[in-house]
Amino acid sequence: MLSLLKVTKTIPKMAEKITKRADDYSKWYNDIIKIAELAEHSDVRGCMVIKPYGFAIWEKIKDHLDKMFKETGHQNAYFPLFVPKSLFEAEEKNAEGFAKECAVVTHYRLKNDPDNAGKLIVDPEAKLEEELVIRPTSEAVIWNTYKKWIQSYRDLPILINQWANVVRWEMRTRLFLRTTEFLWQEGHTAHATKDEAIEETEKMINVYATFAEKYMAMPVIQGLKSESERFAGAVETYCIEAMMQDKKALQAGTSHFLGQNFAKAFDVKFSDKEGKLDYVWATSWGVSTRLMGALIMTHSDDQGLVLPPALAPIQVAIVPIYKGEEQLEQIKTKITPVIEQLQAKGISVKFDDDDNRRPGWKFAEYEAKGVPVRLAIGPRDLENGQIEVARRDTQEKTTISIDTVVEHVNVLMEEIQNNLFKKADEFRHANIEKIDSYEEFKIKIKDGGFYLAHWDGTAETEERVKQETKATIRCIPLEGEKEEGKCMVTGKPSDQRVIFAKAY
Amino acid sequence: MLSLLKVTKTIPKMAEKITKRADDYSKWYNDIIKIAELAEHSDVRGCMVIKPYGFAIWEKIKDHLDKMFKETGHQNAYFPLFVPKSLFEAEEKNAEGFAKECAVVTHYRLKNDPDNAGKLIVDPEAKLEEELVIRPTSEAVIWNTYKKWIQSYRDLPILINQWANVVRWEMRTRLFLRTTEFLWQEGHTAHATKDEAIEETEKMINVYATFAEKYMAMPVIQGLKSESERFAGAVETYCIEAMMQDKKALQAGTSHFLGQNFAKAFDVKFSDKEGKLDYVWATSWGVSTRLMGALIMTHSDDQGLVLPPALAPIQVAIVPIYKGEEQLEQIKTKITPVIEQLQAKGISVKFDDDDNRRPGWKFAEYEAKGVPVRLAIGPRDLENGQIEVARRDTQEKTTISIDTVVEHVNVLMEEIQNNLFKKADEFRHANIEKIDSYEEFKIKIKDGGFYLAHWDGTAETEERVKQETKATIRCIPLEGEKEEGKCMVTGKPSDQRVIFAKAY
Repeated sequence: MLSLLKVTKTIPKMAEKITKRADDYSKWYNDIIKIAELAEHSDVRGCMVIKPYGFAIWEKIKDHLDKMFKETGHQNAYFPLFVPKSLFEAEEKNAEGFAKECAVVTHYRLKNDPDNAGKLIVDPEAKLEEELVIRPTSEAVIWNTYKKWIQSYRDLPILINQWANVVRWEMRTRLFLRTTEFLWQEGHTAHATKDEAIEETEKMINVYATFAEKYMAMPVIQGLKSESERFAGAVETYCIEAMMQDKKALQAGTSHFLGQNFAKAFDVKFSDKEGKLDYVWATSWGVSTRLMGALIMTHSDDQGLVLPPALAPIQVAIVPIYKGEEQLEQIKTKITPVIEQLQAKGISVKFDDDDNRRPGWKFAEYEAKGVPVRLAIGPRDLENGQIEVARRDTQEKTTISIDTVVEHVNVLMEEIQNNLFKKADEFRHANIEKIDSYEEFKIKIKDGGFYLAHWDGTAETEERVKQETKATIRCIPLEGEKEEGKCMVTGKPSDQRVIFAKAY
Repeated sequence: MLSLLKVTKTIPKMAEKITKRADDYSKWYNDIIKIAELAEHSDVRGCMVIKPYGFAIWEKIKDHLDKMFKETGHQNAYFPLFVPKSLFEAEEKNAEGFAKECAVVTHYRLKNDPDNAGKLIVDPEAKLEEELVIRPTSEAVIWNTYKKWIQSYRDLPILINQWANVVRWEMRTRLFLRTTEFLWQEGHTAHATKDEAIEETEKMINVYATFAEKYMAMPVIQGLKSESERFAGAVETYCIEAMMQDKKALQAGTSHFLGQNFAKAFDVKFSDKEGKLDYVWATSWGVSTRLMGALIMTHSDDQGLVLPPALAPIQVAIVPIYKGEEQLEQIKTKITPVIEQLQAKGISVKFDDDDNRRPGWKFAEYEAKGVPVRLAIGPRDLENGQIEVARRDTQEKTTISIDTVVEHVNVLMEEIQNNLFKKADEFRHANIEKIDSYEEFKIKIKDGGFYLAHWDGTAETEERVKQETKATIRCIPLEGEKEEGKCMVTGKPSDQRVIFAKAY
C-alpha cells in the first residue's frame, strides 16, 4: 500500500495556492503559470522570463512545428533584428499598423556619466543617422532581401521560415498572451502566381490547425478575418481560433495572403517564362509563445497544469515510496526494466528518487506540472507485484500488475491525448450557438461563448458590436454551411454566419 | 561511363568565381560564403542574413551542442532581450567592457511625420524613462532574476542555457566572425561553492573542445586568457583556440569563472546547510555563429566549402545522368534501395533529378557547398552495375560496384570526418613552434603561426608585443609541460610558455 495519507495532506496544500477558475479565471491563469514554473514577469517592462519547464514545453511545440514546416518544403533562415526606419515605412499599411508599438534604437554607445561615478549615460555623440526599429514582424527586412534574390521565375518559390524574437510595445501585458518581447516563428514565402500564394496561405493555416488539434489537443476553427482584424499589409488573413475554458476566444495562429503589396513596396519583380515582368506574390504566417497561453487555458484545472502527452516534457513520473537504501534498491531493481521499456517506446520518464522531498510533495509537484501519468511504487506494491497509476487528466488512480504497466502506460498516452481533445471539443460544442437576435446576443455574450450570427459585412456594424458588447468577429469560418440570412444588428442581407466572441 | 567532359567544363567555371587562398585569403573567405550560399550582408549596418544552407549548418551545430548541454545537466530557458540601463551598469567591469558597443532603445513609438506624408518619425513624447540596452550578453538580466530564485543551498546549482541573439556594435564587421547582431548560446550557472563553479567552468570548456574536435573536425588548444583578454567581469576566462588556414588564431569558445562578482553586484546570497549566508558563485560560457567562420576557414579549399560529415546538411548527393524519362526511371529503380539503405543508417541523402540543371552544374554545386560525398550514375554505369563516388575532401573519384556502395559510403563518412581532423591537426602541428628570441619572433610572426614563448606575466609586455607585431597572447595552455624560462621580450622569469599569434 502507498502512504496515501501523506499525499492527501500535501496535495491540497499545493492546490490551495491556486485560485479556482470559477472564482477568478485570470488569477487562476497566473497561479497555474507560477505553480507549474512556466514563466514570470521580469524587471524589464512587459518582458517575461520563460523558465526551464515552460521552455521545455515551448521546445516541444517548436520541434513539432519545425518538422511540419520542413515536411511542407520550408527551410529555416535568419534575418536581422533591426529594421531601418526607411525600410520599415516602405509598406505603408504595415508601417501604420505597427508604428505605435515600435521599440526604437537611436544610439549605439553608452559612456561614463561625468556627474555620477560608476553610472552610464547614453553618449549623445553616438546618435544613429537613421533610427532602427526592433522588428515587430519581418516582412520589411525580408522583402528588402528577397529583392536581391529574385530575378526570374526560376528563383521562385522561396519558402523560408525563421524562429525569432520580436518586440511590440504593448501597454497591457499578460504572461505568454501578450508580452512586449515574444518568441515566434514567421514564414515568408514568395511565389510566381496569385493562386500558388493563396494555396500556400491555406496550406499553412491547415498546418497550424493540424498542429493545434493533434499535438495541443486543442480544437480550432479555421476562418478568415474581417477587414478590420486583418494583418496590416495583408490582402486576406486566415486564422485559427480556439475557445478557452472561460469561453473566450484565443487567436492561435494566422496565415496571411499578402498579394503583391510587399513586392510593390520593395519593387520585387520577376520575369516569367515568357520574359514578362511582374510583381512577386507573397505570404507570411506565424505562431508565437502565445500558444503556451492557449495550451494552459484549454486543459488545466484547479489542481494545476494539464498537459497533453504529445507536448509534455515529462510524460511519466515515477515516485518510489521507501524507507532506507535497501527498500529503494529493491524498487530500483524492479522498476529499471519498466523505465527502459517505456523509453524504448519513446516515452519520456522521470524516476524521482530525490531524498530531500517526500512522496506526497512529489505527487503534488507532478500534478501541478501537468505530468500526464504518475506511477508510484512502495514495498507493499513490490510484494504484490503491483504499481499505482495516476492519470492527470481524469485524476483517476488505479493499481495494476507491474507486468502490464508498460503496455498500460503506452495506451494511456494516446488515451489521455484523445480524451483531452474530446473534452475540449465537447466544451466548445456546448458553448457555440447560432443566434439571430442582437438583444439576446447582448445578454448571452456577457457569459462568453461563440455565437454564429449573420453580419452585414460592414466595419460599422462590427465596431458597434464591439463598443456595445466587447465582442469581435473572430472569423468568417471556412467550413460549414453558407446559409443566407439577415444581419442580427442591422437586418441587412448576409451571405454567411460569422463567429462573434470576446477574445484574448 | 559518366559524361565527365561536361563536368570538367563546368567545375572550373564555378571555381573561377573563388579567389585562391594564396592570392587573397580574406577575399577567398567571402567568396566561399557567397558561392556556398551561407550568408550575406544585409542593408542593416553590420547585420547579416543567414541563408537557408548556412542556417542548416548552424542548426546542426546547435542540435549537437544542445544535446551535449542537456547531457551535462543543463536546461534551456529564455530571458529578455532588453537590459534596463540601471541593471546593465550594476556589475561595473562588465558594464565598462560593453558600454562602448551597446545599441540603446530610447523610444517606444513612431508617428507620422507631419512634414512628410507617408514617412514616420520617432515620437518625442514616447521617450523611455530609463533607456534599454539590447543585450550584448545576459549576465545582468539573468543575475537580477537569479536573485529571486536563490535563497538556500537547496536552490543550487542552477544550470541554465539560452539560445539567443545578442548585439554588439562593432565598427568593422565580417560575415560570421564579427557582426553587430549574432546568434549564440550563453550558459549561466549558479553554485554554492567556488570549487563547484570552477569545475563547471572547466567542464564546459571541455564540452566545447570535444564538440570542436569531434563534430567540427577542428583541433583546438584549451587554455586560460591573460588578464587583458579576459571577459569583462570574469575572474578567469577559459578558451579554445583554433588555427585557421592562414595560420591566424580564432577564439572559438569561452567559459568564464565569474567568482562572486555578479552575485555581489546583484546581491544574490544563499544560506548554506548551517544557515550561514554567502554570495553565490557563478559561471557563464558561450559559443556563437562565429563557429561558422571557424568551420569554413578550417577545411575549405579553392574549389569551395568543405564540410565534415557530422555537420553537413546533405551528406551524400546523388546525381543521375540520363537522357529522357526512361533512363531516369531505370536509374531510380536501381538507386532507390541505395537511398533507403543510406537513410536507414542515418545518412542524409539528396537525389537530385532536377531537370533544369545539367549534371556538370550539379557536380560543381555540391562541390561548392561542401557535400562530403557525391555519387553519379548513368546508363553505362547501370549496365556495368557500377556507380561513381567522389569524395569532397580529397577530390578523389572512384568507380565501384553498386552492390557495395552503401557500406562504402558509410565507411567514408567516418573516414572523411577523421581525415579532415587529421589534416587540420597536421597543419597546426606544422605551424606551431617554440620560440625564445623576440627578434626571430618578430620576423616569423609576419607569416602567421602559433608561437610558444615565455612571457613575464605583465600586461605591459603583452601590450608591447601587440603594438610591435599585432600578435596577442591567445592563451596560457592548460596542457603540456610547465617549463620554466625567461620572457622572450624582457628576459624576466616565466613559469610557462604561452601561445602568441595573430588572431581574428
